[in-house]
Amino acid sequence: MVSGEIIIIGDEILEGEVLDTNSFDVAKTLSEAGFCIARMLAIGDNEDVIKNVLKEAIPQYDFLIFTGGLGPTWDDKTVRAVAEALDLPLEQNAEAYSHLQETLAKQGKNFLGGHQKMTILPRGAKPLGIAYRACGFKLIYQNKPLYFLPGVPHQMRQILKEKVVSDLRGIYPHVTAWYKKKLRLFGISESQIQEKISLILETYPQLKMSSLPHFPEIHLILRTPNKNTLERAALEIKNLFKENIFGEGDQTLPEVVAKLLLKQGLKLATAESLTGGLIGHLITQVPGSSDFFEQGAITYSNQAKIDVLGVPLAIIREHGAVSEPTARYMAEGIKKIAHVDIGLAVTGYAGPTAGPEGPVGTVFIGMSTPKVTEVKKFQFEGSRTEIKLLTAFTGLDMIRRYLLS
Amino acid sequence: MVSGEIIIIGDEILEGEVLDTNSFDVAKTLSEAGFCIARMLAIGDNEDVIKNVLKEAIPQYDFLIFTGGLGPTWDDKTVRAVAEALDLPLEQNAEAYSHLQETLAKQGKNFLGGHQKMTILPRGAKPLGIAYRACGFKLIYQNKPLYFLPGVPHQMRQILKEKVVSDLRGIYPHVTAWYKKKLRLFGISESQIQEKISLILETYPQLKMSSLPHFPEIHLILRTPNKNTLERAALEIKNLFKENIFGEGDQTLPEVVAKLLLKQGLKLATAESLTGGLIGHLITQVPGSSDFFEQGAITYSNQAKIDVLGVPLAIIREHGAVSEPTARYMAEGIKKIAHVDIGLAVTGYAGPTAGPEGPVGTVFIGMSTPKVTEVKKFQFEGSRTEIKLLTAFTGLDMIRRYLLS
Repeated sequence: MVSGEIIIIGDEILEGEVLDTNSFDVAKTLSEAGFCIARMLAIGDNEDVIKNVLKEAIPQYDFLIFTGGLGPTWDDKTVRAVAEALDLPLEQNAEAYSHLQETLAKQGKNFLGGHQKMTILPRGAKPLGIAYRACGFKLIYQNKPLYFLPGVPHQMRQILKEKVVSDLRGIYPHVTAWYKKKLRLFGISESQIQEKISLILETYPQLKMSSLPHFPEIHLILRTPNKNTLERAALEIKNLFKENIFGEGDQTLPEVVAKLLLKQGLKLATAESLTGGLIGHLITQVPGSSDFFEQGAITYSNQAKIDVLGVPLAIIREHGAVSEPTARYMAEGIKKIAHVDIGLAVTGYAGPTAGPEGPVGTVFIGMSTPKVTEVKKFQFEGSRTEIKLLTAFTGLDMIRRYLLS
Repeated sequence: MVSGEIIIIGDEILEGEVLDTNSFDVAKTLSEAGFCIARMLAIGDNEDVIKNVLKEAIPQYDFLIFTGGLGPTWDDKTVRAVAEALDLPLEQNAEAYSHLQETLAKQGKNFLGGHQKMTILPRGAKPLGIAYRACGFKLIYQNKPLYFLPGVPHQMRQILKEKVVSDLRGIYPHVTAWYKKKLRLFGISESQIQEKISLILETYPQLKMSSLPHFPEIHLILRTPNKNTLERAALEIKNLFKENIFGEGDQTLPEVVAKLLLKQGLKLATAESLTGGLIGHLITQVPGSSDFFEQGAITYSNQAKIDVLGVPLAIIREHGAVSEPTARYMAEGIKKIAHVDIGLAVTGYAGPTAGPEGPVGTVFIGMSTPKVTEVKKFQFEGSRTEIKLLTAFTGLDMIRRYLLS
């Protein structure tokens, strides 16, 4: 494989002032183009460090991508470090100079000291950023391309996508993009996945697979240079995990539920206690959700459960607000009030304090469909936010599994 | 200075599948604690690479922080690589084993192969993550602390803040932290902040200040080695931005609103259309929210606005569901139904499609208090998610400003 290193330069990154997104953008773009990123390194604005890193990296990789340290200010040291490390004289770059002068003249602007500095590059450099009013250049050294891109993310991205990718393709024409699939799972733990998946990895040595927890989901990423392998392995994995796989790619759980509801012409309403509106929020993240989502009731207090949903006071007195019968009345109540086909209700303890009917994480989820009302009890673990999220996802997943059956 | 390296392990990072935020979090936390981060490196799930990086880094730095590659799946290789690189036998860690077994037994879950793998650590390892239901351990090697933390960001952050920082302080007691304050602003733009703040930066040359957009908030971070400077500068900034500063540190806007409601003994209910439950979700993120939040109505359809909140059909016909009178009826309706002091209502277009009464981002927010009902019109910009968030925050902020006045 043709592999490279990404090197991010900037004190602000090491000091935790700025989140570096450039290495992610470069890695994503070049991986999709079929190149391999072997390492990502972030270092400070220090000439000696830059020089050492450059000299060490050249023999190890097929290409290098630097970002940052190219601006006109005193703390930008990349150009001089590169020239010294590679023993190239610094000189005015004719292309950069004429282009910059032309651009400034058209705008009626003066050629200033800062502009002058931008045209001084190591001998042999090819300017990359000039069309974007930005810095950036390329050098070929020991037959390997070295790209030096600005640190400003939108400038970097533009030069990367419009210049670097095609340039790399020209230099390494045999590189082809990999095929990729992302499968999204819910209702199964990473350890359970691990138990089941090892056989598939043995069957397909060409397949690269990673499992990524995306709370509360788990994503399985399959990558391979062979389209056939991808299709066959994906099919096997789907047969293995069945309805634990709820979607592919960028599809979210609410989107999947929305699609099923629309297809079957069913309408939904929600009655939420501990989630406080999170289920409604997730559902209404789907554009066009008004076509299947009628309304929701956030019945946080007992009085609201009684007034809005018609849960009998006697039920709450006898069984508690967090109980099977209350969840049942809530689900049936919201279905009736909203004149919908499916009523989803959740009640439980999100924490941090436990309630009279159980510890933190005790949750009842009720789903009332045209035929039957089903209530399940769960014991979730985690923070208040995690318990709310687990409850919301589990509720949506109950609807999905019902609509699939 | 006491300096360290951050090493992120994970193919998903190099492949551009996941944006690494762990190195930023570690850098930020340790910089604030007075430590220096010399490099950040991201490498793949490759045993040989992990071993080489570890062996090279130990002599160069005072501490090392690894994240990732500790999970129970086949692609997690950190533990074995560490054991081999440092020539330490792998053995079952008694502390990790007993804790994990206990936790699983409590949950009525089985001890699987994946769990078993989590308890196998290099000899001498001290488990760090076990209290957080996570992996993670520490080793002392050549008198230097090496921390191996899970890659899952929220687990990593928790262990970092609650275990690693204090441990490093114990090992390097002469390192002193800078004083720091975070001010949280809402309802003012970054350029407006910039305009006003430059004078303060001139007055306090010892002060380091950064403004970080945290959509939809903006955070101003003040840092200085001098406590007095911090207090004086913070006071000046508070006088400058007044009620645009809603909180400090980790205080969220819903927490501030909650505190004001509780202090004044007032109860709240919400009626949400375009936000679909997001406001209720944000409010119920505050522990103990049942003390002031009665209920919410997610009246997504017109029928629900009529049935649940008593908005007259004639009003919706004449003015539309996204209008000043509808927002007014919604706010007053939910206040009445829920028997509360403040009713908050939002109606508008989150997008992507515009509605009959205006473009995407047209939002009316109504607040009905014991004395008066106020409705404001907004024109927000952004994605569906951003418009929902801006609406929710603006609604909560209206309550905050009302309670402060």
